[in-house]
Amino acid sequence: MASCIFCKIIKGKSSEIPCFKLVETEKSLAFLDINPLSRGHALVIPKVHGEKLTDIPDDFLTDILPIAKKLVKATGAEEYNILQNNGRGAHQEVPHVHFHMIPKPNQQEGLGIGWPIQKTDMDKLKALYEEIKDKL
Amino acid sequence: MASCIFCKIIKGKSSEIPCFKLVETEKSLAFLDINPLSRGHALVIPKVHGEKLTDIPDDFLTDILPIAKKLVKATGAEEYNILQNNGRGAHQEVPHVHFHMIPKPNQQEGLGIGWPIQKTDMDKLKALYEEIKDKL
Repeated sequence: MASCIFCKIIKGKSSEIPCFKLVETEKSLAFLDINPLSRGHALVIPKVHGEKLTDIPDDFLTDILPIAKKLVKATGAEEYNILQNNGRGAHQEVPHVHFHMIPKPNQQEGLGIGWPIQKTDMDKLKALYEEIKDKL
Repeated sequence: MASCIFCKIIKGKSSEIPCFKLVETEKSLAFLDINPLSRGHALVIPKVHGEKLTDIPDDFLTDILPIAKKLVKATGAEEYNILQNNGRGAHQEVPHVHFHMIPKPNQQEGLGIGWPIQKTDMDKLKALYEEIKDKL
């Protein structure tokens, strides 16, 4: 997509965008995030344009996590988060699927997480389960 | 691992642990999170014990994301986060790799995200890039 910043990076037309490429395969590209939450914060993106996870073909998705694993090893991160946001309300900023590998060296740096557990019960979960199961 | 709650679920020895299985393949299992952050919050786990991403063989990792994609479609989530935490400091609670698919229906429910961007500059990023690149 011509206007997409990540598609520009993939095509090497990123003269205006600095890009530190770490891993490149036929289907994916990994590079440093230039607005890092911690030292070593990197991204893995599929080389096909798609805004959300459901827009990406499976043969591109299968390529992503082994690359994220390589990034963890190369940065030497001990604790870290793998995160992929879908939609503005879910904190997605660039509308091209990207997986963050964010080292968590201490409480101040890296991803901040809020965990608002919702009240539920086994009957509600069972009803939800039946509903989802029908759509799988 | 005998003491691991997720290994027990995989082996079907979860009489004490309720489990609503959604997807099962040779290498992975997906089920509802019983402490959900939002309606439809589900987990995908590899059927091999490993605490962190780097402990999981690639042929198990490749199976995960296509299943997460199926869960998104079946729950009908429009906005959502895919998250995998590694280490207690990074909010990991069960020490068996698990990928969360967390619908984000509104600001109150679903994953809360803190994004503490760190100061850096192109020289620092370039030096880091050279260092990581050597280890890849």
